Amino acid sequence: MTKRSVFFLSDQTGVTAETLGHSLITQFSAQDFRQTTLPFIDTEDKAREAVQTINAAQADGSPRAIVFSTLVQGECRAIVKEANGLYLDIFDVFLDQLAEELQEKPSYEPGRAHGMSDIDAYMKRIEATNFALANDDGGTSRNYDVADVILIGVSRSGKTPTCLYLALQYGVYAANYPLTDEEFERGELPGFLLKQKEKLFGLSIEPERLGQIRKERRAMGSYSSAQQVRFEVRETNKIFSRYGIPNVDTTKFSIEEISSRILDSTGVERRVRA
Amino acid sequence: MTKRSVFFLSDQTGVTAETLGHSLITQFSAQDFRQTTLPFIDTEDKAREAVQTINAAQADGSPRAIVFSTLVQGECRAIVKEANGLYLDIFDVFLDQLAEELQEKPSYEPGRAHGMSDIDAYMKRIEATNFALANDDGGTSRNYDVADVILIGVSRSGKTPTCLYLALQYGVYAANYPLTDEEFERGELPGFLLKQKEKLFGLSIEPERLGQIRKERRAMGSYSSAQQVRFEVRETNKIFSRYGIPNVDTTKFSIEEISSRILDSTGVERRVRA
Repeated sequence: MTKRSVFFLSDQTGVTAETLGHSLITQFSAQDFRQTTLPFIDTEDKAREAVQTINAAQADGSPRAIVFSTLVQGECRAIVKEANGLYLDIFDVFLDQLAEELQEKPSYEPGRAHGMSDIDAYMKRIEATNFALANDDGGTSRNYDVADVILIGVSRSGKTPTCLYLALQYGVYAANYPLTDEEFERGELPGFLLKQKEKLFGLSIEPERLGQIRKERRAMGSYSSAQQVRFEVRETNKIFSRYGIPNVDTTKFSIEEISSRILDSTGVERRVRA
Repeated sequence: MTKRSVFFLSDQTGVTAETLGHSLITQFSAQDFRQTTLPFIDTEDKAREAVQTINAAQADGSPRAIVFSTLVQGECRAIVKEANGLYLDIFDVFLDQLAEELQEKPSYEPGRAHGMSDIDAYMKRIEATNFALANDDGGTSRNYDVADVILIGVSRSGKTPTCLYLALQYGVYAANYPLTDEEFERGELPGFLLKQKEKLFGLSIEPERLGQIRKERRAMGSYSSAQQVRFEVRETNKIFSRYGIPNVDTTKFSIEEISSRILDSTGVERRVRA
């Protein structure tokens, strides 16, 4: 089957158009899409270039393209609308309704490009990232007093990427501490963690998935053996239930979903809004 | 002025609703919004709870709420639509058009909740994150042969968060190497970087902003002095122009924008789609 082209058009990064479009096209599982992002369309020349790219993608007789657009500037929008394809535009649909509700004219300026970016939000995200790096994997700083949340779980349960995502996306201070044989043998958590008990959040994982992830890293040895991963997962779950630590099963979710569930479950406030 | 409430409703993380809503409400600069995300509305009970939350926010006489919704499930959608407020729903608007174009019925299933999450994408993002961590700040591994891109720039120009964002969001292998007095005195890049010249990408920054960022970290000393940051920025720009290294001025952009511009400029392919 010839793939149908899907384009994400933006005068900025394209993240909004991609997010919107992706949430819609994943509703149609029988399709095979070829996805292309065309960001930074902020001049009429670039808009005309985008039209050529879109039209060229259909020149071979493949099905009509779908175009998700988040262009704000009137001239560029008018140009890209001339491209062949089903044109879906969030500003077309929602902006007038909002303007009427708010009794204010929209600025028609690309979202974030108002001169200096927000240094306050930028700094918060950078500092949160530095915090995550310094407090990764039980790291020596163990600056848990200022942590918003401390993730615990076995090796390769997703602690590091989740902490980094929480930092970059939300400016949240997330530390993490690995559960290893030391904790499993004692059957309890170390004192410095229990002092922060209300900040603890667990990442659980199904043994099969954990084995699969560990094999990708280190194919041989007991690290990824079925017996070892089953043992670690069982002992981890015991610790979670002994202390009543809220936890999420990372087997089923993407990093975004895990992060979002942690915020939702803990009530930790995001320091920045993406 | 009483703040107007804006709600982002989702049966998943809320990231799509937030992204969409944020791109729209930032078009109205005269407003003062109170933003709340209500994620994981995947039962009728939770939908009714959301309605109560939304209605309660307007009980004090503040202006009518704005509700951005990305709920897919019919029953939950019908319930939340009953809340007071201007209800804006991307599925209402776009799903039927898409279904007609694609000649397929939408699944009406929450975006990513089809059982196991995509282990392949998950692994790619984790491996890319590990790569970024191992190759951060000129790190010892210097595994530049497999890097997709190598960012260079002065200390605090945004290299680390950008590499991590590229890894987490796109699965891209991004290393970074700091430009310091060593490079400035010689006026040239080390040989192991020049061997990878086509992968180099520069982060530039305005001296004032660099000083401001460095002061937040370490208020005293020459590190953040006007003279020092001007010197480093000037020498960095010389190196960029000497070798013709493409670069982006991080003063003006958020981490997402910097990352997106790097992909756009280098043509590096994303390994996963968010």
